[in-house]
Amino acid sequence: MPESPDTRDRLLAAAARLFHEQGYAATGVATILREADVNSGSLYYYFDSKEDLLAGVLDRYLDLLEPEILSRAKAAASDPVERVFALLGVYRWGLEVTGCTLGCPIGNLALELGDAYPALREKVEKNFQGWSGAVEGWLREAAGRFPPGTDLAALSRFVLVVMEGGMMQARARKSVEPYDDAVRQLRDYFDRLQASRASGPRGNPKNRNRKGKRSS
Amino acid sequence: MPESPDTRDRLLAAAARLFHEQGYAATGVATILREADVNSGSLYYYFDSKEDLLAGVLDRYLDLLEPEILSRAKAAASDPVERVFALLGVYRWGLEVTGCTLGCPIGNLALELGDAYPALREKVEKNFQGWSGAVEGWLREAAGRFPPGTDLAALSRFVLVVMEGGMMQARARKSVEPYDDAVRQLRDYFDRLQASRASGPRGNPKNRNRKGKRSS
Repeated sequence: MPESPDTRDRLLAAAARLFHEQGYAATGVATILREADVNSGSLYYYFDSKEDLLAGVLDRYLDLLEPEILSRAKAAASDPVERVFALLGVYRWGLEVTGCTLGCPIGNLALELGDAYPALREKVEKNFQGWSGAVEGWLREAAGRFPPGTDLAALSRFVLVVMEGGMMQARARKSVEPYDDAVRQLRDYFDRLQASRASGPRGNPKNRNRKGKRSS
Repeated sequence: MPESPDTRDRLLAAAARLFHEQGYAATGVATILREADVNSGSLYYYFDSKEDLLAGVLDRYLDLLEPEILSRAKAAASDPVERVFALLGVYRWGLEVTGCTLGCPIGNLALELGDAYPALREKVEKNFQGWSGAVEGWLREAAGRFPPGTDLAALSRFVLVVMEGGMMQARARKSVEPYDDAVRQLRDYFDRLQASRASGPRGNPKNRNRKGKRSS
């Protein structure tokens, strides 16, 4: 079957957009085909099912994490802690440009899919791990600013929890304010952690090493 | 049309359970009728549409907030700050009994519905306000333990953000561990806020008054 090399990409991009806008269950295959300008034979040439298409969408989000999301935070701030807040700023921008209607596509799918498709749940989790793993790498660069023994992996996952919970509240109130409030509380927590390090015992020197930056 | 007085309740209970388990879009009216043991004439006697039924489900969640959720936290802890963590414990229990498959029904609906049905979004937001309003009432009882000027309304909404974000991560990993980690970080933040109050300036006496408990 002769296929244009970008047919698969067009299908993935249209499916990603529609799942984000309307949810997975509410999106019909016919709509995906129409928006991708592809016929159903081509869809089933590349994907076994709508579920398989969603698996491709989740792999694509993981591929785009660095070039579309993390790279913006890196460009916006060189200080590793400020980079974390710049990353949260990328999502704030996403709320603003959509009038707080869309939120995080991975978070939406996490709640919509639940345990219905175990293989897809694992791909959702991989996206979350990629995100919080990047934050953890930045926090490790700044490890010396946090109290000795701070669990930076847990702290990085907490940043993700606050981002996702804040996005949810912003969508429910259709205002960016709940997101800003949540980020402000997180900033206060970070400030208190860093202030206690500054005033506390010099402690465990291993926390002052810059541990291996994660390669990106 | 002769109706048994509990037909409407049976419809609401079945719809609430199914929307929670499978999502709103993925739940067909036929399934609701079968699980409620009700015919479609009775459904449309009480509700104009599936959307109207969801409106009833959201009103019911608000009615049940006090007797099913808040009352458990109150029974579990008399100290107002411990009550907040007891409330988070109620949701942990919900994760455990469902094997981390279900999460918070309101949070799920918030992300699934987005802006598709403005009247329903407002009912979702009312549920969130009821929840964080109760937490705010408890924090006001303990206002003297927090630093002067602490925005207790914002702090109570942060508790909701952490609960919802933590539930999402627990479902994605199918483990209660990410939820426990998030609550542990929140506890650390609360401890740091309270410690700084204890060691800080005595400050603004109005914050030491027990401001009006919200009636529940």
